[in-house]
Amino acid sequence: MNGAEALVDALVAADIDVCFANPGTSEMHFVAALDSNPRMRSVLCLFEGVATGAADGYARMAGKPAATLLHLGPGLANAGANLHNAKRALTPIVNIVGDHATDHLHLDAPLASDIEGLARTWSSWVRTTKSADAVAGDTHAAIQAARAMPGSIATLVLPADCAWNDATPSQRRPFVAQSCPVVPDERLRDIAEILKRGEPTMIFVEGRVLADAAALAALDQIAQKTGAIVRAKTTNARVERGAGRASIDAFPYAVTQGLAAAAGLRHCILLGATQPVGFFAYPGLPGLMLPSDCAIHTLALPEEDHEQALHGLCSLVGADKLQPRLVEGGGLEKATGVLTAQSLAMTAAARLPEGAVVTDEAITMAGACRTMTTRAAPHSWLQLTGGAIGIGLPLATGAAVAAPDRKVLAFQADGSAAYTLQALWTQARENLDVVTIILANRTYAILRYEMSNLGIGNPGPKAVSMTRLDQPALDWVRLAEGMGVEAARATTAEELDDLLASAMKRRGPFLIEAVLG
Amino acid sequence: MNGAEALVDALVAADIDVCFANPGTSEMHFVAALDSNPRMRSVLCLFEGVATGAADGYARMAGKPAATLLHLGPGLANAGANLHNAKRALTPIVNIVGDHATDHLHLDAPLASDIEGLARTWSSWVRTTKSADAVAGDTHAAIQAARAMPGSIATLVLPADCAWNDATPSQRRPFVAQSCPVVPDERLRDIAEILKRGEPTMIFVEGRVLADAAALAALDQIAQKTGAIVRAKTTNARVERGAGRASIDAFPYAVTQGLAAAAGLRHCILLGATQPVGFFAYPGLPGLMLPSDCAIHTLALPEEDHEQALHGLCSLVGADKLQPRLVEGGGLEKATGVLTAQSLAMTAAARLPEGAVVTDEAITMAGACRTMTTRAAPHSWLQLTGGAIGIGLPLATGAAVAAPDRKVLAFQADGSAAYTLQALWTQARENLDVVTIILANRTYAILRYEMSNLGIGNPGPKAVSMTRLDQPALDWVRLAEGMGVEAARATTAEELDDLLASAMKRRGPFLIEAVLG
Repeated sequence: MNGAEALVDALVAADIDVCFANPGTSEMHFVAALDSNPRMRSVLCLFEGVATGAADGYARMAGKPAATLLHLGPGLANAGANLHNAKRALTPIVNIVGDHATDHLHLDAPLASDIEGLARTWSSWVRTTKSADAVAGDTHAAIQAARAMPGSIATLVLPADCAWNDATPSQRRPFVAQSCPVVPDERLRDIAEILKRGEPTMIFVEGRVLADAAALAALDQIAQKTGAIVRAKTTNARVERGAGRASIDAFPYAVTQGLAAAAGLRHCILLGATQPVGFFAYPGLPGLMLPSDCAIHTLALPEEDHEQALHGLCSLVGADKLQPRLVEGGGLEKATGVLTAQSLAMTAAARLPEGAVVTDEAITMAGACRTMTTRAAPHSWLQLTGGAIGIGLPLATGAAVAAPDRKVLAFQADGSAAYTLQALWTQARENLDVVTIILANRTYAILRYEMSNLGIGNPGPKAVSMTRLDQPALDWVRLAEGMGVEAARATTAEELDDLLASAMKRRGPFLIEAVLG
Repeated sequence: MNGAEALVDALVAADIDVCFANPGTSEMHFVAALDSNPRMRSVLCLFEGVATGAADGYARMAGKPAATLLHLGPGLANAGANLHNAKRALTPIVNIVGDHATDHLHLDAPLASDIEGLARTWSSWVRTTKSADAVAGDTHAAIQAARAMPGSIATLVLPADCAWNDATPSQRRPFVAQSCPVVPDERLRDIAEILKRGEPTMIFVEGRVLADAAALAALDQIAQKTGAIVRAKTTNARVERGAGRASIDAFPYAVTQGLAAAAGLRHCILLGATQPVGFFAYPGLPGLMLPSDCAIHTLALPEEDHEQALHGLCSLVGADKLQPRLVEGGGLEKATGVLTAQSLAMTAAARLPEGAVVTDEAITMAGACRTMTTRAAPHSWLQLTGGAIGIGLPLATGAAVAAPDRKVLAFQADGSAAYTLQALWTQARENLDVVTIILANRTYAILRYEMSNLGIGNPGPKAVSMTRLDQPALDWVRLAEGMGVEAARATTAEELDDLLASAMKRRGPFLIEAVLG
């Protein structure tokens, strides 16, 4: 067994059996080792940001990390934007980066660079393996680090010689159980007392309870009983929503709306979250959203036991016997005519199959997508968490690998899609069951919106041209077909509905360019 | 004048009048400031790696830096692979990265990250501007740092408030002249003495003399007179070649060939280069290419005056009156039949117009492309210098912006093209005169080649599948059309010749998918 085989062995032993890979020469022994273990599935990506975005989507749905395989510093850089998003989503990833052989590094060959320095930007744990014999133990440590609550990126740098040299089979070590510390009763009682006062209070939520229907119901019970409002972070790794679930609104993106939402609050109770802040700064507006006299209380830190805390609190405030308000499904109207974000989302909501996974990189159109799907069939909703655009198509790709029996629907803005369109090829190669709707407004609409927020009232022609994607317009049908994915264009709600009707009946990737009017 | 306008003003005052941009919200004041100065041209890119690869190609042809405009840490990460290549090419770039407003940073908003830490990976100079008043001076310092010989990347981080706040007009500072230290006569005499001994000697060359026809001729004169061999680095930022130029071979990429090329050498004379090393390490093979008893002498460091050193040396060895051996043009045979790398390159060579700029990211097929174009009309040859694939299409884009009167021809491997295909959209938007030939072997052929070099003789089916790009095949005609670039497919040399004949007659971007047999 060589070091690379020891690595694959250690991953599979820890139930990490999917690797999103964009390998190069220094990773060839790892690639060869894929065949040494029948359980390891390697998914080829044509760009590294696809690999890391897919690993993020995979872990959000599988509840366990995937591995990645990247080629030295430049491969890691290409992977970085979606590692940033994964870091913000608290997604566990075992991020494997090949490097030159140990005794080659000092030669400063053309591809050499400071991989560890780069990796630290996004990783909670970074280690360069020193020998083939160390691979198994280092892999174990990387997995442990990635899995530790609340989840993070562990980067293992693998010099080529540590992969190709013989490794002495090592004793398999057990993993520390992936438990999280319980929240002490005293803290729960303190928070319950605050809630019982009935003063204006917001419970601000981030993390895994949003992916848990029972926890969402408990949040609603507490809100009913105490009058507190409950808000999720503006964007979230995964939210269970739709018919039969308790619905939780997200805190607004726009600073003026955020300030309005927080106005008058006396208490903010944090469940896995930090206090709400502006996504960007604007001249003359504050970055902190809470009023200065609002007291901030921590119900649970990100790494603590959110469910225990929540259900404990629910009982303490006497809310656990209340009937949670669950969303009634059905009654979805049919949209007609010209496509807007709203009519598009209405149409998609009506066609959304039960148990679908929805990825949302709709940016300025995300609000409409979320609103119109509130009463759709129950589904999981995965969002852009770190603001680094170019996650949507990879996220859908990884989610589809993790959940092969669930339809994946991607609400995808066109500008953002252009960053990582190579994900479509992986969808075709793996025949993944993803329907992508490109919301083609042919603009960086977010930039126009933000120009106005920033007080740039009358941008000149050069500035405006920096926000235009219509000279030329991207032809998403051809781009998808070029990547091997069947595609069609819709310009009305009726056309979109027809295309979705057939796309939802078949399996495999399909892309719809929805040209907004 | 606000800080952003002060930045644009300082750039234009230093004759930096092209900016390759992929802006976001925090850069909106810079974007608005584009209209404040008619001389500044902003070229929109749909992915940051396109912006930095284009800035590299631009500077290689313009002989001066371009600016870039990137959006926070994730934008910089996406830009990183081509910054790595630019760093290895010693290309000057003024790399501008927007950041959150100064008083917003501590809030750890979703897009916040360690931009300076990331930037240091690729930059010789990094500074975060502290106020709008500091922008002009910081920009001046960044430009000075980027231009300092031999050229490097200077990263200026621009917090949003430093862009939007009012800036006091500052006194315009002069730039230190961009001179490089002369090589002392004593060193030239020492090197001349070594050359006169007639022992086996290689002059190993990197950098700007390769882009200077007179310097290439001087190198040939020295070789004729002294019997030394002259080799360029394996890949180079820019080489002038073709009919009427002295031709210089590159040091081989393959380690076994490199060792053979260096066998028996007693002296290696470095002109702007460091000694040749293996691009990758291989089990049982050395990383240093020179024999252990080969003495290494430095003729000129990268930042010293290469031309003065070279012409001085040429005189000292008495070679300056010799007739340099210049390549005879013409006599190019027509290829026929099935497309191979060789027949493709023969066909392109015959159609190459005088003064063309050729970008070479042909990877395993680069050798054939170089060999077959040796006697083509005189042209500039730009290569992948840092091994981070995905530079070719951006490099051609930037070269075309810098040299609008010269045809740009891109020899582009298909696997590498997939990393940054968004460059095609910028070519369409700017109507750049680029003809791209996709060498479609539908394989990561370099990986198969390297597997064999690494002793992986019989890779299993999963390993082989990681090198295949034919399931599905990328359809480059559709991909190009999707990006707004006219395209066609060739499967024989005759078809390629027909397409090239018409492509060379027209202006504007055109892509040919050359399907290799």
